[in-house]
Amino acid sequence: MIEPKIRAVPGFSFVGKNVGIVDSSLDFGCVVADRPCAAAGVFTRSSMPGAPIIVGREHIASGRLQAIVVNSKNANVATGARGIDDARAMCRGLSEACGMAPELVLPASTGVIGRRLPIEKIKAAFAGLAGELADDAAAAERFARAIMTTDVSPKWVSGKVGNATLLGVAKGAGMLEPNMATMLAWFMTDADVPAELLRPMIQRVADRSFNRMSVDTDTSTSDTCVVLANGKAGPVDLAQFEQVLSEAAIYLAKKMARDGEGATKLIELHVVGAQSQDQARKTARSVINSPLVKTCIYGADPNWGRFIMAIGKVFEYEVSREKLRITFGRGEDRRVLDAATVEAGNMDLDALRQLLKGPEVHVELDLGCGSEAYHVWGCDLTEQYIHINAHYTT
Amino acid sequence: MIEPKIRAVPGFSFVGKNVGIVDSSLDFGCVVADRPCAAAGVFTRSSMPGAPIIVGREHIASGRLQAIVVNSKNANVATGARGIDDARAMCRGLSEACGMAPELVLPASTGVIGRRLPIEKIKAAFAGLAGELADDAAAAERFARAIMTTDVSPKWVSGKVGNATLLGVAKGAGMLEPNMATMLAWFMTDADVPAELLRPMIQRVADRSFNRMSVDTDTSTSDTCVVLANGKAGPVDLAQFEQVLSEAAIYLAKKMARDGEGATKLIELHVVGAQSQDQARKTARSVINSPLVKTCIYGADPNWGRFIMAIGKVFEYEVSREKLRITFGRGEDRRVLDAATVEAGNMDLDALRQLLKGPEVHVELDLGCGSEAYHVWGCDLTEQYIHINAHYTT
Repeated sequence: MIEPKIRAVPGFSFVGKNVGIVDSSLDFGCVVADRPCAAAGVFTRSSMPGAPIIVGREHIASGRLQAIVVNSKNANVATGARGIDDARAMCRGLSEACGMAPELVLPASTGVIGRRLPIEKIKAAFAGLAGELADDAAAAERFARAIMTTDVSPKWVSGKVGNATLLGVAKGAGMLEPNMATMLAWFMTDADVPAELLRPMIQRVADRSFNRMSVDTDTSTSDTCVVLANGKAGPVDLAQFEQVLSEAAIYLAKKMARDGEGATKLIELHVVGAQSQDQARKTARSVINSPLVKTCIYGADPNWGRFIMAIGKVFEYEVSREKLRITFGRGEDRRVLDAATVEAGNMDLDALRQLLKGPEVHVELDLGCGSEAYHVWGCDLTEQYIHINAHYTT
Repeated sequence: MIEPKIRAVPGFSFVGKNVGIVDSSLDFGCVVADRPCAAAGVFTRSSMPGAPIIVGREHIASGRLQAIVVNSKNANVATGARGIDDARAMCRGLSEACGMAPELVLPASTGVIGRRLPIEKIKAAFAGLAGELADDAAAAERFARAIMTTDVSPKWVSGKVGNATLLGVAKGAGMLEPNMATMLAWFMTDADVPAELLRPMIQRVADRSFNRMSVDTDTSTSDTCVVLANGKAGPVDLAQFEQVLSEAAIYLAKKMARDGEGATKLIELHVVGAQSQDQARKTARSVINSPLVKTCIYGADPNWGRFIMAIGKVFEYEVSREKLRITFGRGEDRRVLDAATVEAGNMDLDALRQLLKGPEVHVELDLGCGSEAYHVWGCDLTEQYIHINAHYTT
């Protein structure tokens, strides 16, 4: 029961504005709750995490947060001790503006790596900020737009669990690969869920959603997925809450893949019939990340041999070509390629080409050696990805 | 002592011609020795190897080969039992044309995966073939051109070891990733080196050369690196022979990377100061394969933060940002980025941009945590890679 809509959540206020980090577009946002919230999150596994990740991990350790402060256009990564100071200064600025402890603020930054934040511009943004906060959907939308970098569209989703509301806001289009925590994604809810239950729940949810999505195999230094629960709506059915949170996270993950830098298509890939989860996961990642698979899907070129190649790259597992079945598409139009159709030369490449032309490409790989399954989402690789990334800082 | 030249090798004859597999370009070649040779090779680690790999492994097991038969435009991969029959038919055709046992012939095919070979056209090519073979450099050049697929240029190298000559001929431009045996590369020599010494030697040589080269992380189903030694020139100094063979293989590997699909630049990346070979190798591969690193080098965009990101993707090792040093370029023009230059904002991005503009980009990453080193070769990622691969079969 999720909706692709932005919705206010009782007890949460938002701001999104320009503070002039690079140009005059929206580049700064805050989420402020009217009370401390139960909080849990997962962060990038990068060994080179950004300064906001280091400070954010400290602050969320208590299981309580009341606010988020974020800027785009500059990631505050690889900026040394001064970067840490700058991330703390962002938390202090918001805490003083709104009257809370700085340890209740989660910092985040996204954009170019290796440049110092223009911290004076950010500090100036806190003057009068308390008066700019608003608890309506329009303010939440400005917040969602302020965190965009190469995103083509803002990303939000909402849902209801009993009397409680859930809002998810995210950004992410490149430097995305499933072997990580996630990109920037925050969930706000007025459900009452204690932090010790939120912690394992957000990890499970990330593993079903953001960790199954890949744009380009590059893992960000800034990935963050955090949920804040202010408790105003009282307790909820926990299984139902996790279900809605999962659906919301999957919706945002698919939106990131579909919106991947330069992408024209969402790819949904299911690996079934694997002998282990490890084989299923490694095979899914090998195929979804293969540049030759991604480019042939972009060109709607029915070059199905590239799937064979990408399956073969998982050296540690044997797969029998006689048992392997590849299914393109779903429903009545689907085309199955197995040893018999290949032996008979009966592949109907024109039908395959038509299936690859749509905005969503569904592929199932049945490895024929067990009963384990895994699925991932990705996107095609186009000239536009190169264009966006060849001159990113210049 | 290698030279970027094609050279005849006493006792080896060549043919390169068109047999009409797809169009009228060169698509078929043979190497025939005047006697059985000591032979050793390494092949793809793909779990979906092509039919010629399966047959080739059988034939080379004896340590003796006398000929190579190869076609381009069709890889004879994922073609089932008929594909195996076709690979054997190619060996039989050449063996009957030249009077040798079919088990002395190594088959190879390169091109599209998943289509049956037009075997009748290939069988027809053997009529009169014995008369077309020639032992001069011009014939060897036609052979080298007949095995090209998306290669921009043919690839050869030669060298002398004592009285013996070594010739290496290779192809490869895409579906190239170092975690493999190699692409198609054959070495012919008249040195007398027994197969039991050639076997470990070709593995060591591949590990220093082809296995350190990456174009696009996709591992071919057809990779082959084989050396044939006919012994005509008598014994040679083995250490010197291995040295020349290594230099020749490195020359061909760098040529493949420079000639990578759509590439405009060769990237040479050295990782030093690692705590283990595993860390050095994984970090080198993470960086050389990062699409965001490859695209910023393409655009000569001094976005050095992407190197930090790609180092950070090797989750299992800690790297201290304070000890990390990145050096762009070699010699007097080199630029060093370490914690101090970053803290001081003293990066001179214009100098960095100039270094990235050349046809060869050299980068050294000193991880500052040990004394292990590893180096790799790669190439940039451009719109042309997408263009080549989006419509490969159509």
